[in-house]
Amino acid sequence: MRKTVKGNAVIGQSGGPTAVINQSLVGAIEALKRHKPIGRILGARHGVRGIIEEKFIDLKGLPAGLLERVAQTPAAALGSSRDRPDEAYCEKIFKVFEKNNVRYFFYIGGNDSAGSAHTVNEMAAAADYELRVFHIPKTIDNDLLVTDHCPGYGSAARFVASAFIGDDRDSASLPGIKVNVVMGRDAGWLTAASTLGRADATDGPHLVYVPEVPFRVNQFVEDVRRIYGRLGRCQIAVSEGVADETGTPVAVALAEKLGHRVERDSHGNVQLSGTGVLGDFLADYVKSELKEKYRTLRVRADTFGYLQRSFPGFASAADQVEARRCGEKAVALAMAGDLDGSVAIRRVKGPTYKVEYFRAELKDVAGGTKDLPRKFINRSGNGITKAFREYAAPLVGDLPVSAKLA
Amino acid sequence: MRKTVKGNAVIGQSGGPTAVINQSLVGAIEALKRHKPIGRILGARHGVRGIIEEKFIDLKGLPAGLLERVAQTPAAALGSSRDRPDEAYCEKIFKVFEKNNVRYFFYIGGNDSAGSAHTVNEMAAAADYELRVFHIPKTIDNDLLVTDHCPGYGSAARFVASAFIGDDRDSASLPGIKVNVVMGRDAGWLTAASTLGRADATDGPHLVYVPEVPFRVNQFVEDVRRIYGRLGRCQIAVSEGVADETGTPVAVALAEKLGHRVERDSHGNVQLSGTGVLGDFLADYVKSELKEKYRTLRVRADTFGYLQRSFPGFASAADQVEARRCGEKAVALAMAGDLDGSVAIRRVKGPTYKVEYFRAELKDVAGGTKDLPRKFINRSGNGITKAFREYAAPLVGDLPVSAKLA
Repeated sequence: MRKTVKGNAVIGQSGGPTAVINQSLVGAIEALKRHKPIGRILGARHGVRGIIEEKFIDLKGLPAGLLERVAQTPAAALGSSRDRPDEAYCEKIFKVFEKNNVRYFFYIGGNDSAGSAHTVNEMAAAADYELRVFHIPKTIDNDLLVTDHCPGYGSAARFVASAFIGDDRDSASLPGIKVNVVMGRDAGWLTAASTLGRADATDGPHLVYVPEVPFRVNQFVEDVRRIYGRLGRCQIAVSEGVADETGTPVAVALAEKLGHRVERDSHGNVQLSGTGVLGDFLADYVKSELKEKYRTLRVRADTFGYLQRSFPGFASAADQVEARRCGEKAVALAMAGDLDGSVAIRRVKGPTYKVEYFRAELKDVAGGTKDLPRKFINRSGNGITKAFREYAAPLVGDLPVSAKLA
Repeated sequence: MRKTVKGNAVIGQSGGPTAVINQSLVGAIEALKRHKPIGRILGARHGVRGIIEEKFIDLKGLPAGLLERVAQTPAAALGSSRDRPDEAYCEKIFKVFEKNNVRYFFYIGGNDSAGSAHTVNEMAAAADYELRVFHIPKTIDNDLLVTDHCPGYGSAARFVASAFIGDDRDSASLPGIKVNVVMGRDAGWLTAASTLGRADATDGPHLVYVPEVPFRVNQFVEDVRRIYGRLGRCQIAVSEGVADETGTPVAVALAEKLGHRVERDSHGNVQLSGTGVLGDFLADYVKSELKEKYRTLRVRADTFGYLQRSFPGFASAADQVEARRCGEKAVALAMAGDLDGSVAIRRVKGPTYKVEYFRAELKDVAGGTKDLPRKFINRSGNGITKAFREYAAPLVGDLPVSAKLA
């Protein structure tokens, strides 16, 4: 086994973009440029789709200044894809790699992307074709296995925490009930970040609902009634993916009831983002339930939508650095020997926040997702614990100034 | 007539908050602290409501550091109000002023607030009670008469322009049709700001719809079909207040059709924010119209909601300074003689952006609102002109970095 193999490299981006996915891209490009065995550095347009259609961008000759600006730009600069390659699709990918002497493949994505990378890697191994495959983690959902946290999460969490700070001041200005729907199909990591800016017990969000706890609409109304009775207002964070006890997402049940199409992607995931139906329903419902007691109750809902993952100029500084390092680390590992894997992050014990990067097995990362642990959710299932805030605060970094007069 | 009159001052905040409304508050407080004839500086909790209920906060003794942090915090630190005082209400306000020897009244708000201030002022004049009343402008809608632009607009416009930059990169990553609904009940000023980050002709938003142009849903679909056919994607900005040729807001017609309550505030304004119905409808409609030709079309909608006016840590630098100066200027004018009015902004001609502040008559500002002029809208009624971008760019200031690979 040679320590390094001469050949070309392909980089792709997959799944829902993040604010720092291009940091990982640029980290990998810059690192690859420093290695002689690497011939061409090819960027696949729109992930695996660009590979099988041989739609590549030459990434080697790009000026460093442009790359730096791309690194700071949210969303996948190469284009992303929702395709999930089956055997035949992977066969096509592999043929393109053979044809183009691609020996290094870096795939920036979530656990589905780790799965795709794993499949292609197994195929190359079976054909005795030396291919070094590295998955570079990214997801605002923070739900990848093995790693302590995921590049992309810190920035989305910073946006959500900040949005809740400002919205809480807004809703204290004109008091009422405010429902904010946060991204998160299966896991409540991002919704939990809504609590990171709370300075005292009167600050919102006063209630937090995550997919890990079955959502009961009547309990929700009682929770709101109690908080509103006490504070004269109530700010609420709800994951888009909250589901009833049978596991049916509330948003899906409502959309079907209202005659909307329920869309699924090629991974079988239901589309929950890009619609305001859950927030609108919860606002209407709570209003109708409380209207007898409070005649002029002000109830509003916002669905934060794609801004959570795409808002520019507001990334977490730690997240930017870590996403960059993950791209660099993937290259370093690939150049160090005939290894494949996924880059993962762990914390180094010590007085201040510090991380190190290590190699995880592709199949371990591909194998599933990680829910918000029970210790991060309060006993009533409608709030987030201090333990979560300690976990997440360093990922998010500094939050905007907020102060009250009284 | 004395040049200055000894007495107390009241400051209030009204209407929908902005990211810089507290800059004006702090500007007024700091200026008032420097004037000996001013006794107490009273902050009215929740606008005129706090006056008639005599709910005041003492603003004179607050530490400068706290005030500075409050100035940077979005939303009304004193609390806001949607009350529109009638004669009896104004009588109550006046009685409270007499009782508390209030001789200076500063009201930070939109044109309705200028109207309230005007009514109270007339009442004081009729009673021969010397009261100096100043309206300090604020509104993200940018629709006040007389002034060149309104404090609060630049920051909201910066948020919207930035959101469109990031969302455009996101929607280029996973191409499809993306509808973004922007605040603006009657005027398209904020929606027009969606175009400020466009770097080239392929950048979104590719279509912009404002309330000043009657909205025809069939024309909308044809516009989208044309752009999508050409670019393979389409990002769209729509004001929440777009209305059909009879003047009925599309969102209201839809909400009624779907059986939602349509809410009106005490000014008779229909509630359009805090609901995703318009965006959801436009997405569903365009999808159903184009599905024959494009079977797997990806269509999404976001309603930006209250984040546009409340997002913290992201204000326009120019807007922050101008909002502060408007507060200071109101005090300077009130101390200069027995004058009443509204602070307005005009540009000073020259090679770089520069403004000066002047006194407008309360009744002129109270008298109406200002639409987006026709010269700022393209001939087809579905886009924004370069003239608008020249007008708005200095109000918004620098925008986040964004770069493309290709």
